[in-house]
Amino acid sequence: MRSGMSGQRVKVDRVFHALGDATRRAILESLSRGPVSVSQLAEPLELTLAAVVQHLQVLEESGLVRTEKVGRVRTCRIDPEGLSVANQWIADRRSLWERRLDRLGNLLAETGEE
Amino acid sequence: MRSGMSGQRVKVDRVFHALGDATRRAILESLSRGPVSVSQLAEPLELTLAAVVQHLQVLEESGLVRTEKVGRVRTCRIDPEGLSVANQWIADRRSLWERRLDRLGNLLAETGEE
Repeated sequence: MRSGMSGQRVKVDRVFHALGDATRRAILESLSRGPVSVSQLAEPLELTLAAVVQHLQVLEESGLVRTEKVGRVRTCRIDPEGLSVANQWIADRRSLWERRLDRLGNLLAETGEE
Repeated sequence: MRSGMSGQRVKVDRVFHALGDATRRAILESLSRGPVSVSQLAEPLELTLAAVVQHLQVLEESGLVRTEKVGRVRTCRIDPEGLSVANQWIADRRSLWERRLDRLGNLLAETGEE
């Protein structure tokens, strides 16, 4: 496997692992309405700060979230990079599948013409 | 929560839980090249038939895969429904986020004009 391919594989694995958890998806849903602090994230989701910090670490490592600490407040925001990785993987599965359906359709059409 | 909303939530939860597993993603990668039997799926992935059947059940319940048994052979294929659910969730996160960036951009432009 080429190193470029396996780097992409690691990214895909991290992003889908991160998205596989309902609490982390709830965090992303909150953040898609705008940046918030860690404590503002924790409250509506009824999570401890420690739990949010742990989920944020997974989300940061997968490129789904960026955080920035200014003074004592850490602000979290969506990182579009991770969503792009997930989106691309899904689009690739669909396009391979759809191209296959197209080829089948052409084959059937050609068979019909004979 | 309205029943329509919670039905969609259940679908989203199932799809991302299913996509969160690397073996199930490998199964979807195989199937995007075309339909195969359960044993044809198992061999290159070095999985037991029992393991494949278990993963297929999760994939079927989440609308990512369809299987059909003819005689003694069960054929598996991609179901585009599940991929659409995942795609839509990602697109919604991105569009909320991008609309927010647009509003911020407009606000900055207006402030600059004053």
